[in-house]
Amino acid sequence: MFCWLSRLYGGLSRPTRRTTQLIWGSFSRSLVLSSQRRIPELSSFVARTNTCGELRPSHLGQEVTLCGWIQYRRQNIFLVLRDFHGLVQVIIPQDESAASVKKILCEAPMESVVQVSGTVISRPPGQENPKMPTGEIEIKVKTAKLLNSCKKLPFEIKDFVKKTEALRLRYRYLDLRGVQMQYNLRLRSQMVMKMREYLCNLHGFVDIETPTLFKRTPGGAKEFVVPSREPGKFYSLPQSPQQFKQLLMIGGLDRYFQVARCYRDEGSRPDRQPEFTQIVDISDMFRNTEVGFLQDVLSKPQGTIKAICIPEGEKYLKRKDIESIRKFAADHFNQEVLPIFLKTNNWNSPVAKFIMEEQGLGLIRLLETQEEDVVLLTAGEHKKACSLLGKLRLECADLLEARGVVLRDPALFSFLWVVDFPLFFPKEENPKELETAHHPFTAPHPSDIHLLYTEPQKVRSQHYDLVLNGSEIGGGSIRIHDAELQHYILATVLKEDVKLLSHLLQALDYGAPPHGGIAIGLDRLVCLVTGAPSIRDVIAFPKSFQGHDLMSNAPDSIPPEELKPYHIQVSWPTDSETEKSSLNHPCHPES
Amino acid sequence: MFCWLSRLYGGLSRPTRRTTQLIWGSFSRSLVLSSQRRIPELSSFVARTNTCGELRPSHLGQEVTLCGWIQYRRQNIFLVLRDFHGLVQVIIPQDESAASVKKILCEAPMESVVQVSGTVISRPPGQENPKMPTGEIEIKVKTAKLLNSCKKLPFEIKDFVKKTEALRLRYRYLDLRGVQMQYNLRLRSQMVMKMREYLCNLHGFVDIETPTLFKRTPGGAKEFVVPSREPGKFYSLPQSPQQFKQLLMIGGLDRYFQVARCYRDEGSRPDRQPEFTQIVDISDMFRNTEVGFLQDVLSKPQGTIKAICIPEGEKYLKRKDIESIRKFAADHFNQEVLPIFLKTNNWNSPVAKFIMEEQGLGLIRLLETQEEDVVLLTAGEHKKACSLLGKLRLECADLLEARGVVLRDPALFSFLWVVDFPLFFPKEENPKELETAHHPFTAPHPSDIHLLYTEPQKVRSQHYDLVLNGSEIGGGSIRIHDAELQHYILATVLKEDVKLLSHLLQALDYGAPPHGGIAIGLDRLVCLVTGAPSIRDVIAFPKSFQGHDLMSNAPDSIPPEELKPYHIQVSWPTDSETEKSSLNHPCHPES
Repeated sequence: MFCWLSRLYGGLSRPTRRTTQLIWGSFSRSLVLSSQRRIPELSSFVARTNTCGELRPSHLGQEVTLCGWIQYRRQNIFLVLRDFHGLVQVIIPQDESAASVKKILCEAPMESVVQVSGTVISRPPGQENPKMPTGEIEIKVKTAKLLNSCKKLPFEIKDFVKKTEALRLRYRYLDLRGVQMQYNLRLRSQMVMKMREYLCNLHGFVDIETPTLFKRTPGGAKEFVVPSREPGKFYSLPQSPQQFKQLLMIGGLDRYFQVARCYRDEGSRPDRQPEFTQIVDISDMFRNTEVGFLQDVLSKPQGTIKAICIPEGEKYLKRKDIESIRKFAADHFNQEVLPIFLKTNNWNSPVAKFIMEEQGLGLIRLLETQEEDVVLLTAGEHKKACSLLGKLRLECADLLEARGVVLRDPALFSFLWVVDFPLFFPKEENPKELETAHHPFTAPHPSDIHLLYTEPQKVRSQHYDLVLNGSEIGGGSIRIHDAELQHYILATVLKEDVKLLSHLLQALDYGAPPHGGIAIGLDRLVCLVTGAPSIRDVIAFPKSFQGHDLMSNAPDSIPPEELKPYHIQVSWPTDSETEKSSLNHPCHPES
Repeated sequence: MFCWLSRLYGGLSRPTRRTTQLIWGSFSRSLVLSSQRRIPELSSFVARTNTCGELRPSHLGQEVTLCGWIQYRRQNIFLVLRDFHGLVQVIIPQDESAASVKKILCEAPMESVVQVSGTVISRPPGQENPKMPTGEIEIKVKTAKLLNSCKKLPFEIKDFVKKTEALRLRYRYLDLRGVQMQYNLRLRSQMVMKMREYLCNLHGFVDIETPTLFKRTPGGAKEFVVPSREPGKFYSLPQSPQQFKQLLMIGGLDRYFQVARCYRDEGSRPDRQPEFTQIVDISDMFRNTEVGFLQDVLSKPQGTIKAICIPEGEKYLKRKDIESIRKFAADHFNQEVLPIFLKTNNWNSPVAKFIMEEQGLGLIRLLETQEEDVVLLTAGEHKKACSLLGKLRLECADLLEARGVVLRDPALFSFLWVVDFPLFFPKEENPKELETAHHPFTAPHPSDIHLLYTEPQKVRSQHYDLVLNGSEIGGGSIRIHDAELQHYILATVLKEDVKLLSHLLQALDYGAPPHGGIAIGLDRLVCLVTGAPSIRDVIAFPKSFQGHDLMSNAPDSIPPEELKPYHIQVSWPTDSETEKSSLNHPCHPES
């Protein structure tokens, strides 16, 4: 499904943040896709005759009218004009007769919107800019018009100017003018278009919008509620079109897709963190250890000792790196990490020394380590230990790359399928009861169906996750199409109230075909492709981590009389409740 | 923008509702677009080797495996199998050795899902079905497997079987299997894809999703509220991405589009009804009338007398048609309609006779009527009279067409732009104050800007509506890009609280380019193209008129403890309030 990705990616170069010059060059290159195609009648209903980015030597001598933002001005002679199509250099006339034009263009603040008319001329020899697609020409201006003046900006529209995240979000419309944001959003649009072309035009998929005002479903505690005008009746904003997808399959629309919005009002589940860990379990080696804290861990049912090996770590990792790794583990996972230097035990730790003496050779064999490697060892509850080491692996890679070691090729896309997940987990609060690992509609692995009635905790699911460069970018499953099986899992295994899902159970009874699907996390995928540090950099108007829109100040108070039609009123919390609720997870709408 | 429409439309023939045979034929034809293209590796990961709809004489002799729904079975010999790609005929083996296969295929209820393997063979001479794309071949089955059995259906999956709207919505997943719904949803998907290709690939537009959890804005009383986890703080679901569109223009994404969801929680405003009326005002002719009720009307400030002419109405309209027209006017508009037969006043009405004698010749001249025409005359408040006659015009066209008169070519798309709307209206409850005709961001007509400060009620707007075959399918406007002008209109003319829009006013100050746009009502457009009687027939999972999801029973009650995290509680209405609220507008989510 991702064959187009490398092609698309290869055709666009990422903007870098090095120098202004480079940024300009890349800005224009990043728009190359749209200028390659002839845009018909681009300006049929607007003042401009051309766009800033399209002018070439073939336009020499033409009279043109351009509109754009003032990107840059130098010595009151040169001005760079910007529109969605690119940049062009404009020459401000210096002769007395054009004084009014000069006044407009020299007095307009940066980022003002102007319209200029003039002639396309060659740049003087030696002044061409090969990094700008319009770098061989410039515009000799005759008339100019200020379309809208720009007040003093809260920050300069230059990517290398550092601004806080809060400032960026508050003035998002200015932040969007930056090279990197323009690149990210335009690439995202093109990626989605390619996906649509692939699914619709090549494979006959049908694009169908499913409702976002729906009914609360089991496990829907994370869904936003929307009061209706009927007293006490609420819609909910579904976390995903989960049920509608299945109903469409049952409805005979058997190749469906949607670019869907998902609403979640709290952080993702910890087991869905974008982590991918390759670790080695070394618990067996320590079964007879004399190190106390390791003994403790192994005596617990989920206790495990795990390690990762950092090749040539001794050469590249400094003492303060190791300190920061240990601090990270302590702060974020409340876990102890033990570094073991295989060659020279220069880590001043008696425990590490003891371990090396006791299990050194075994470790070297099992981890296939070399002399200069460093081993990071941790012990604890299985899931926690895995998560921590997965995170540390990425941290160490960052550290080594900062020291000049080439580990990961940013232009390389490495995909991986993760399969054979368990269908159920024991509930944390009551391990005798089971909860679903993903959701109750996932089909059991065909080879394990017999276990469902005897040892359900051993059943593997037909869930699959897709991982790109170490980050989970999607997941899906084969669904249950048999009404009886679905009823058994909901009612007997999970002890859910099946009444809430009666419409789905009924639908399965009316000729549901075997079916499955996958959902790709578009935000995260675009992040990986653009190299954006946060999904907020690939969304036009993101909410802050707390779920706030810093630009408009949403969510906001509503006068009680406007709540009346919805038959609700605010229950103001008491002081003690306020304290408690501040400890809750923050909300993540539309993640 | 609609050049592709006729081509798309020409390529697909609408399914008709006449006979089963025709329906099958059209069903297959309607899928012609997807089968024209070679679908690569269609079946690489599924049990089937081919789809039902793709088999042709070129496949003769091939061993194939197909999956599909049992559409039809005849004499336990023939079976028609259906999938998303089309239909194919399957021959059930009759020999003793294949008894188990026969048993499966003959006992499976209609609409069960089966998998069959067999050989593609020619149909015997004379048994070909030229209306089926697969009509020259059939499948000689060797093995069969029941993938999912179907319980007794609440209704037959045949378009000609009448079902109530409520039953259709309750079992929407079955209703979706019908030929017409499949056609509508697949055509919709293709239409949207063509729009995207036009905008993205040809014109460099950027597809951007804007948030649906936003802040309440002025005039936002029709927006759904969404309680957040912060006490007393609410998001709202915006009726349209109105402000975000403008912020994107300001953000330099100057060619933006989105297939956006709009949320409205009540009926559309009466002036936005999909009516288009061509009427003639004949008030002046009756200034001195002696007919009492006409005098009454004309004495009121908004009173008017209007008429439409039905060409050859005398020949085609029966007495009961006229009765039903008058009843319609009385029931839906509380208006009197007076039919005037120009040739023979065979309507037994002294008023009509009197009018004919008094104003007959004038009417004939003004309406340019012919002898056999019928004039429908109504009197009343201007807007109401216009709405009524517009509706009657369409009703009469339906009646005449039912009598065999060819009036409208269903394959013809007639577009019309409506311009020069007023920018403001006097408020109904207080005519001295003004309210916006559309929304407060619409720019005034450049020629009328000077009137803004003296006679604002006379200012025309730069709003435009697009009408297709008499129905409004879209509208848009040039927006205000000047912060001062926007502030003046909001604060001085409309007396709105500008604080709620401070983010937009501020954004306009930072180099907002002149900009405008248009929004097309996709549901209605698809309705017109498919000829669907209701927008519910072009939406996969529509809500009922009351905003209910009849399948899942949304909106639904929520236990009080689940409302706690949102700090709200239900205010149960008293009996008298319940009565009042039942008179309110019903809600229309996601219209």
